[in-house]
Amino acid sequence: MKLLTLLILALGGSLLAQTPAYQNSDLPIDERVDDLLARMTVAEKVAQMRIFHANQGVEGDVSGRLTLSENVKARLEHGIAGIKNPGEHLSPVAAAQVNNALQRYIIEHNRLGIPALFVTESYNGVDAAGSTVFGRPITSAASFNPELVQRQWDVVGREARLRGMHMCHSPEADLVRDPRFGRMSEAFGEDTYLVTRMVVSAITGVQGDYDGLGNGTHIGAVAKHFAGYGQVLGGTNFAAIEISERTLADEIFPPFKAAVKEARTLGIMASHGDLNGVASHANPWLLTEVLREQWGFAGYTVSDANDIGRLHYFMKVAETPEAAARMALQAGMDVDLYADDAYALLPAMVGRDSTLIEDIDRAAGHVLRTKFILGLFDDPYVDVAETEAGVRAESSLQLARESDAESIILLKNVGGTLPLRRSGQRIALLGPLVRENTEASFRAVAGEGLSFISDRGFELTDGNRSIPQLNDDTADGVDRLVEQAKEADVVVLFLGGDEYTAKEGFFNGALGDRESIDPLGPQDELVRRVKELGKPVIVALLHRRTLSINTIAERADAILDGWDLSEFRDESLARAIFGEINPSGKLPVTVPRSIGQLPFHYSGKEINNKKGYLFTENGPLYPFGHGLSYTTFAYDDLRVSDSTMTADGQLTVSVRVTNTGDRAGKEVVQLYLKDLIGSVTRPDMELKGFQKIALEPGEARRVTFNITPEMLEFTRLDGKRGLESGDYEVRVGTSSTQYVTTNFKLRAE
Amino acid sequence: MKLLTLLILALGGSLLAQTPAYQNSDLPIDERVDDLLARMTVAEKVAQMRIFHANQGVEGDVSGRLTLSENVKARLEHGIAGIKNPGEHLSPVAAAQVNNALQRYIIEHNRLGIPALFVTESYNGVDAAGSTVFGRPITSAASFNPELVQRQWDVVGREARLRGMHMCHSPEADLVRDPRFGRMSEAFGEDTYLVTRMVVSAITGVQGDYDGLGNGTHIGAVAKHFAGYGQVLGGTNFAAIEISERTLADEIFPPFKAAVKEARTLGIMASHGDLNGVASHANPWLLTEVLREQWGFAGYTVSDANDIGRLHYFMKVAETPEAAARMALQAGMDVDLYADDAYALLPAMVGRDSTLIEDIDRAAGHVLRTKFILGLFDDPYVDVAETEAGVRAESSLQLARESDAESIILLKNVGGTLPLRRSGQRIALLGPLVRENTEASFRAVAGEGLSFISDRGFELTDGNRSIPQLNDDTADGVDRLVEQAKEADVVVLFLGGDEYTAKEGFFNGALGDRESIDPLGPQDELVRRVKELGKPVIVALLHRRTLSINTIAERADAILDGWDLSEFRDESLARAIFGEINPSGKLPVTVPRSIGQLPFHYSGKEINNKKGYLFTENGPLYPFGHGLSYTTFAYDDLRVSDSTMTADGQLTVSVRVTNTGDRAGKEVVQLYLKDLIGSVTRPDMELKGFQKIALEPGEARRVTFNITPEMLEFTRLDGKRGLESGDYEVRVGTSSTQYVTTNFKLRAE
Repeated sequence: MKLLTLLILALGGSLLAQTPAYQNSDLPIDERVDDLLARMTVAEKVAQMRIFHANQGVEGDVSGRLTLSENVKARLEHGIAGIKNPGEHLSPVAAAQVNNALQRYIIEHNRLGIPALFVTESYNGVDAAGSTVFGRPITSAASFNPELVQRQWDVVGREARLRGMHMCHSPEADLVRDPRFGRMSEAFGEDTYLVTRMVVSAITGVQGDYDGLGNGTHIGAVAKHFAGYGQVLGGTNFAAIEISERTLADEIFPPFKAAVKEARTLGIMASHGDLNGVASHANPWLLTEVLREQWGFAGYTVSDANDIGRLHYFMKVAETPEAAARMALQAGMDVDLYADDAYALLPAMVGRDSTLIEDIDRAAGHVLRTKFILGLFDDPYVDVAETEAGVRAESSLQLARESDAESIILLKNVGGTLPLRRSGQRIALLGPLVRENTEASFRAVAGEGLSFISDRGFELTDGNRSIPQLNDDTADGVDRLVEQAKEADVVVLFLGGDEYTAKEGFFNGALGDRESIDPLGPQDELVRRVKELGKPVIVALLHRRTLSINTIAERADAILDGWDLSEFRDESLARAIFGEINPSGKLPVTVPRSIGQLPFHYSGKEINNKKGYLFTENGPLYPFGHGLSYTTFAYDDLRVSDSTMTADGQLTVSVRVTNTGDRAGKEVVQLYLKDLIGSVTRPDMELKGFQKIALEPGEARRVTFNITPEMLEFTRLDGKRGLESGDYEVRVGTSSTQYVTTNFKLRAE
Repeated sequence: MKLLTLLILALGGSLLAQTPAYQNSDLPIDERVDDLLARMTVAEKVAQMRIFHANQGVEGDVSGRLTLSENVKARLEHGIAGIKNPGEHLSPVAAAQVNNALQRYIIEHNRLGIPALFVTESYNGVDAAGSTVFGRPITSAASFNPELVQRQWDVVGREARLRGMHMCHSPEADLVRDPRFGRMSEAFGEDTYLVTRMVVSAITGVQGDYDGLGNGTHIGAVAKHFAGYGQVLGGTNFAAIEISERTLADEIFPPFKAAVKEARTLGIMASHGDLNGVASHANPWLLTEVLREQWGFAGYTVSDANDIGRLHYFMKVAETPEAAARMALQAGMDVDLYADDAYALLPAMVGRDSTLIEDIDRAAGHVLRTKFILGLFDDPYVDVAETEAGVRAESSLQLARESDAESIILLKNVGGTLPLRRSGQRIALLGPLVRENTEASFRAVAGEGLSFISDRGFELTDGNRSIPQLNDDTADGVDRLVEQAKEADVVVLFLGGDEYTAKEGFFNGALGDRESIDPLGPQDELVRRVKELGKPVIVALLHRRTLSINTIAERADAILDGWDLSEFRDESLARAIFGEINPSGKLPVTVPRSIGQLPFHYSGKEINNKKGYLFTENGPLYPFGHGLSYTTFAYDDLRVSDSTMTADGQLTVSVRVTNTGDRAGKEVVQLYLKDLIGSVTRPDMELKGFQKIALEPGEARRVTFNITPEMLEFTRLDGKRGLESGDYEVRVGTSSTQYVTTNFKLRAE
């Protein structure tokens, strides 16, 4: 190939005087991509289809010095699509320096000077040291505040770019409806509409409303996992998924479609496992027909870790590694994440079958296009001078607190147990979710008038090995906590699950899914024994999967559900307990009474959700959209602008919401529609809008929603998405079970 | 219309001298149907599309006298397709007399003298008084003996016809994979192949190998519920069903396809609820494209009770009752079971839309054709003289005992606890599944050498109201049972569930599904306390749904799983306990450790079944196909006839099975195939054959299976069912987890 370069050098003297088109920032991106591709060897193109992890030998130190292993140097010989997590353990400034050095090395050591993408993740802030730590997506979803979520992900995008990153393998656009699944906290809940709004906000935020990509302030998003990952059978990571095309179109696809069409995500990641028997990493219907042809996606598709290789040795849908690479490539998979036994084989395969080059051009082109969009050919380095001030800015930390304030859900509050007054009480902070600084955080919020004790009592698990920590110490710990509760006036129990009880599950030794959703260990026993003392019992619920907290729900006087809050968790809980925060979060999932009720989401078919079982109470423990406040809200005067809507018209629905209590508060006004008759069986009801409003005591406000034809589309009996004439019930209220109603008629013809 | 008849009378003098073609038994059936249809009014045709229940006013007394209400007489004015359960509470002879009188009334009171179908059901024998009561289908399935099941259903067919019945709404061809579902005992288990073999046997038996239909000795079968009824979400009756077309084709359809093509079932009943959003009673793909066009079904389709009317008021896929009737009719539904608000509306609808008549002709024609096949136009009455001797013949009762003997599953038998010796012991028969005659049955089997006590102790439910019967009496009952156990040398605990803990579930007040599969009430406590006494504990497990019997499995010394045995239940259990029966039943389902493992069937994808969850043991409590014997069997010398199979060839696989114990016994030799690589993800393994053999102590036999191309077909990536080249592992053994293996290669091209 060097010979070829020399020939070009010799023959094209006049051309050489010019800047190559791909390096000319005045030209359109597509032209630059085409020019560059035309100059590249097969090896160089395939290099643009592979991402490896920095743990292969990218080392940086605290002073920003970079060291590369020989392995990494070899991997960079022809360029590279990207590197995952370089500098992740370093401070933002050191990371920025290391990543600049790394980028410089890469550009200088591949023939055409193609820069690399540095890739991170963001469940709750940039997944790297020194970043602002927000609540997890399931927590954010509870805010029902997309604008807030967008600001949060704007910070993520800025902080990531400031440490030299360009893409994140986030957000999750999956619907999480099975609390056995260890990753449910990484997504935005069970509901198509809520998840769609949150995913659009997250992508818009992290990409700086797309403008942040080219001007170097933000990073590109990768929406994942396409498609159906939240619906793995049995809540088992990697498992088979069975979903009808109707449910895919109406419930699973919309967040992804909006990620592509509305938020313009730069990337899409495929799902582990299969969908109706077809491996999602080799599914041409998903990756090409739906994503490209129907939705017009122009970014790149990327595999989940090692999943192209896994088509052979794990999914067993490819006879050989080469067959795996071919299947994925031809189905529309652009980038191979990590595997050394998949797209690494393509150059040799092209030698035997040149027809592959067309798909390789497509895949490499998508990656190169992304790099142009991100401005990496023109300005590949981060301005380290801005990093120090830009990461963990005071405004960002304040935003984390604000997010917490909007995300804490008041599940129960008997007789105004909360908020607590700030004087004269002894408060015990007890239970396995208490942290080292919990007591100090509470003291700081409460001021001088109160005394505190705190104690974890017992451990839920044996740490990373995830073995339940139930032994003699556990029983002693429960006894000790009960003794400590006796000394207090009020007991706050920190219960739920730790980071080892819900996580991404692999195989034995690294599991993360659970077959039970009962609180682990003696947590229920602790609640029962403390409640018997006759004192107010407040439960702070902290967890990464839905738990059927029947005993807590029955015994606790008040429950604050925090899911997985920001780094200011304890401060935020204290502020809620003492009334500085008036809770306004709402449940982004249905809380079942037992695992035997699964699958259970409020928008299921009526019969599924309402029929009931022998010997048990019917219905959810807490319904989707539920969340109380320290004040109260009344809904009345629901109006619809017309009794009939046409296919080219729209309606407005408005309701008066009044703060009928004596505190200022925020309320999430929720709009649900129920299609009373359809040519196919219809959801019991569907969330179609929500607005979060702040009301002073006594204040009333009229809240208005537009009902548009798009909101009424579904996949009809004829298999097409569209409208159908008929009657709809409008339900506007404070949760999926408390609402006022009216009706309208759709005339679709 | 009477005027028209008179006109024909006047004009067609020469024709009148002849027998009408439809009454000429020498003519082909299709010709007779066409002739009859041409003579019928719309009202008469629609009457051939409706079945009502005898409880509308068909009364018979013990002496065989018939009384009809005015309501019933009005319903019979234009003839009728059929009547459900006439004479069900009468003795067979009285029922035969009543049904003859009923048939005579019907023939004489409709213009063209069209006879009616009298319809019953058969879960475990004819669903009518005085019939031989066999074990339920799930029990029969445990026999893994299709020939025995065919003989059993042959008795059912004969006993039904002898009491004047012509059709039964049985058998179920559903796969039951969710033990929450209240009806799981009505079907033949979780496995496609096992269910297919049993359904073919049941239909072949009940129809007298088809020959029994025309010669008047047997009745027609109605295979149900088409399709996916066993897969209702949440195990909730009527609930939505989500199944991919691939899974439908490869797993759900085969028993129905075999019912149609192999066993020639006369009828097919649709499933309650929907399939992927489309109501199964109005699904043209299911009822016409798959059933008629692909499989060539020529019988009639029938609704489940009231389900055509329910399309409007329950499923809400039809705006009006008329729309419901139209949808169902045009989709291919022939007969309306019970509803007075569905096909009853068709005559008036035809007046406004004559295009409906074509579908009405089709539907009525299918029913009339069935009546011709059953010989009802030629010989509509039962010979009552044969009834007395033919029902509950000694050979039939002996067959019920034989079925029990082949169906009891020995789940566990530590240290040869079973069989018990017959002398010198005091045996306590204890627990809520003990019956009044249990002790007598045991005494009769055991002879003189033993003493018995028996006591139910407590009730699981409050009878028909299905309220768990847990009160002070329950606790006292457990205490009393423990005291009685102290007096015994051996304790046999009768545990599981009664008829009220698993049944077809409707709405509140008539539920039947459960959200838990733990044994109800203090059954586990009873096992623990009795086991602490240090005596041998034998559990007789009697139940209609799978229970996760972890405590029983851990504590009992021996477990005999009887599911729901015949009327000789206690005698059969006693014979097994004392060794007259050497158990040879095998589990027709996977027994999970907990409900959180659902969905869990052995043929699921490998990842679903093997990955595991945090904090719990992996795998099933008892695997599909498991069942011990009082002797032992060894498998060796597995041979395959060739290492390669072609698309037009076949292989034989043979294995040597040796009875290595000291008793004669029967073994179910099970053949499983595992497709090692496919273009789509493949089941972990699939049952493809089984043979039940009897071996004397020390006897060895070579068991041979044919592997045919049809056994290897599946729905490929291209969406078509067919073969794919690749490697298969052959697993032959005593259960789905204990087997010997070999391999072969399929060359499909």
